Amino acid sequence: MRNLIMKVAYEGTAYAGFQIQPDLPTIQGELERAVGQLTGQRVSVLGSGRTDAGVHANGQVVQMLVDSRIPLERWPLAMNALLPEDIRVMKAAEVPPGFHVRHDVIKKTYLYRVNNCPHQDPFLRRISFHYPRRLDQSRMEAAARMLEGTHDFTSFCSVRTAVENRVRTIYRLEPEQASEGFLFWVTGNGFLYNMVRILVGTLLEVGTGKRDPGEMTTVLKSRDRTRAGMTAPAHGLTMWQVEYERDYF
Amino acid sequence: MRNLIMKVAYEGTAYAGFQIQPDLPTIQGELERAVGQLTGQRVSVLGSGRTDAGVHANGQVVQMLVDSRIPLERWPLAMNALLPEDIRVMKAAEVPPGFHVRHDVIKKTYLYRVNNCPHQDPFLRRISFHYPRRLDQSRMEAAARMLEGTHDFTSFCSVRTAVENRVRTIYRLEPEQASEGFLFWVTGNGFLYNMVRILVGTLLEVGTGKRDPGEMTTVLKSRDRTRAGMTAPAHGLTMWQVEYERDYF
Repeated sequence: MRNLIMKVAYEGTAYAGFQIQPDLPTIQGELERAVGQLTGQRVSVLGSGRTDAGVHANGQVVQMLVDSRIPLERWPLAMNALLPEDIRVMKAAEVPPGFHVRHDVIKKTYLYRVNNCPHQDPFLRRISFHYPRRLDQSRMEAAARMLEGTHDFTSFCSVRTAVENRVRTIYRLEPEQASEGFLFWVTGNGFLYNMVRILVGTLLEVGTGKRDPGEMTTVLKSRDRTRAGMTAPAHGLTMWQVEYERDYF
Repeated sequence: MRNLIMKVAYEGTAYAGFQIQPDLPTIQGELERAVGQLTGQRVSVLGSGRTDAGVHANGQVVQMLVDSRIPLERWPLAMNALLPEDIRVMKAAEVPPGFHVRHDVIKKTYLYRVNNCPHQDPFLRRISFHYPRRLDQSRMEAAARMLEGTHDFTSFCSVRTAVENRVRTIYRLEPEQASEGFLFWVTGNGFLYNMVRILVGTLLEVGTGKRDPGEMTTVLKSRDRTRAGMTAPAHGLTMWQVEYERDYF
């Protein structure tokens, strides 16, 4: 058996999320179907993390154990011939036996795109949140700096979050100005359910003046989801990059 | 009656082209429907030029004569509320009585996007041509320089071209290197049917080595469509900008 990982990009618009679900189109479902067709076996495909319905990926990493002699460099092309156009395998690599695609993640980066122009751009409509209200970058930056670092992010995750330990480290949270609005870059050692979308939703409320940057410390301390801002919509979010101790690709 | 022009962006994927056709979705059809709903009148919408099925626009300009007191600055929002998401009115302006949106064009710029990576990018698949063969930029540049200027472009237009005079001036034809491949920028005083797509198709054949840059002069002189290269597919093409003597927007 070979222990393979693949770097996968997808536009999530047409999918009910990464995780396989009966009778619904999912990224995992499409990948397992393609690997199954290629190998003639039932193969489980594990992701570095789930993405919600409508969320996209630039560099999702998936793992599978396969019994196949297809050479490594042939995998992307072979998979892409069987996958729908909105899912593409970009690279494949072989990893050591102990490797775990989810447990071994040391850093993840998400991009949240906000189109701040008066009218949505038809070419960005599936991958950016159209939010035409005036946004003050320096206010958002000030709030972002207070959220960076190691904190209990209970206030910034869905109340449906099951995990007990909500302490995470954000290495970088930055609203970068772009021609169409803002690119919110978020890098951390791990993320709770809806965490990036709530962080961005809160920064947007700071940007419009609805909230003060200084509030962030109190919001964090409260460990109360209702104290943070809105959950920005899924379609603005892209899982950008997943990092491991070694770069396997 | 007010003489209005609007700057319109659209993703052409879902449309049978700009020009209205019975029982088919078209850009013109959608625009006329929206103006009709807003004004209660039957209004003709004229474009600066047609775009084929699957071709996109960043800055198409359209003209219409309307009898309406809607203030100029309200038009984009009012239209966008009635248009599908893949068509957006970006700006509106009032023009003098003699203005003609097609006849008065002095310069048009098209962008043709080529993704030259081994695998298509799911986010670019609708707006770029995936052409993964090795392309030599300096060869394409050499050929492009020979096509710039004033020439009879009969070899570079569809045999179905009806117009007699095929002399056009290309001010700029440039393959710009981009992270995913090449952006072909083409600016001219006017374009024949399929001209940009045949120019790009020919440059790609020069880029792979199938043709010599030096051939371009002979191909132009031959006035024979079969001597030029392939017609690059529609979905890589975007009508980028249309210029008039004055910038009305």
